[in-house]
Amino acid sequence: MRPEVTVNCAMTADGKIAGRSRKQMRISSREDMERVKRLRSTSDAILVGVGTVLADDPHLTIKGLTFEENPLRVVLDSSGHTPDDARVLDERAATLMVTSEDCQRTWPRGEVFRAGRGRVDLVRALEYLYERGIRKLMVEGGGETIFSFFREGLVDRYCVYVGSMVVGGRGSPTPADGEGLPQDRIVRLRLASADRMGDGILLSYEVEDAERP
Amino acid sequence: MRPEVTVNCAMTADGKIAGRSRKQMRISSREDMERVKRLRSTSDAILVGVGTVLADDPHLTIKGLTFEENPLRVVLDSSGHTPDDARVLDERAATLMVTSEDCQRTWPRGEVFRAGRGRVDLVRALEYLYERGIRKLMVEGGGETIFSFFREGLVDRYCVYVGSMVVGGRGSPTPADGEGLPQDRIVRLRLASADRMGDGILLSYEVEDAERP
Repeated sequence: MRPEVTVNCAMTADGKIAGRSRKQMRISSREDMERVKRLRSTSDAILVGVGTVLADDPHLTIKGLTFEENPLRVVLDSSGHTPDDARVLDERAATLMVTSEDCQRTWPRGEVFRAGRGRVDLVRALEYLYERGIRKLMVEGGGETIFSFFREGLVDRYCVYVGSMVVGGRGSPTPADGEGLPQDRIVRLRLASADRMGDGILLSYEVEDAERP
Repeated sequence: MRPEVTVNCAMTADGKIAGRSRKQMRISSREDMERVKRLRSTSDAILVGVGTVLADDPHLTIKGLTFEENPLRVVLDSSGHTPDDARVLDERAATLMVTSEDCQRTWPRGEVFRAGRGRVDLVRALEYLYERGIRKLMVEGGGETIFSFFREGLVDRYCVYVGSMVVGGRGSPTPADGEGLPQDRIVRLRLASADRMGDGILLSYEVEDAERP
């Protein structure tokens, strides 16, 4: 058993989640940021990869919610590169660090779960989250993490806000990076809705053949 | 004076115009391919970069149209790498090869125009097309070529069909590759329309601050 997984991100109209510097850029509209806030607050946990922690240092909390009310923060960090003073480890919410079994690193604040050799075994990590009571998991990035969820067939819903701008860059991160899927393993989606929000549009998809939790 | 430029492409829901192998993949729906055919037939010229010629070897012609009725085919090929037997040089339509001034290459069938040192001077090339009577230019790719049009502020309209699939790949081509734009030079768009077509959606944008022809 695993939680229901919603991937949520924002990309430019040319498919980038950040510019060539990899620094976070404002792609979402205000309306979309409100939607993301609602989506976060109805999730049991919010997950990002270590790349996002290092690039953006996000809090992953919802303004106005207490420690207990905030969803669990989960960081995928196979080799344990998250700094002790990362915001995702602050006192505003609980945090679970997920590393591979080869990693010894601990953190002053975060709990640790270890699964898989070399890199995190995602299926095992999701089973663990389910055992802990997590039913709705929101995956916020970055491109390497989102790709690994798609590759493993673990995504149920994919929501992408398309901002009305072009930034370019063959090295700019995209919603799904990684090594890419071969032609015969492309993930098929069903466009469930398309809603204009501010000057952009939110596309919501269901994954056609996700292995249902 | 320059032609009005419409960039048209199809990307996956994670922002890729092809998979990691760079081979063409079917992203468009049948409805969208009909639309592209109409767009092509109302254009005076259709332009691609040499990368697209080498990867996909497209005809760039419209079925059922005569040599005279087909739009001019234009290939941006700074260093002259298009093979003599490329389909874009076949007898179905006229072809203009655009190289830099450093290139000496000629082709048995295509006319040649040379502009710029090292790489093609796009502004000069568009002026030349205008002088030849081209008023509507459609740019079909690939990502490097589309990026160079955006970088030079030469795009009036951007149409992107978003296919309902995820392919991933940090090396997969995107609608706008190249070196990427710095934060203060991001191209702002206005979402003119969003239309479902088959199982995907067509997003049509106008460029906010294009230098109008």
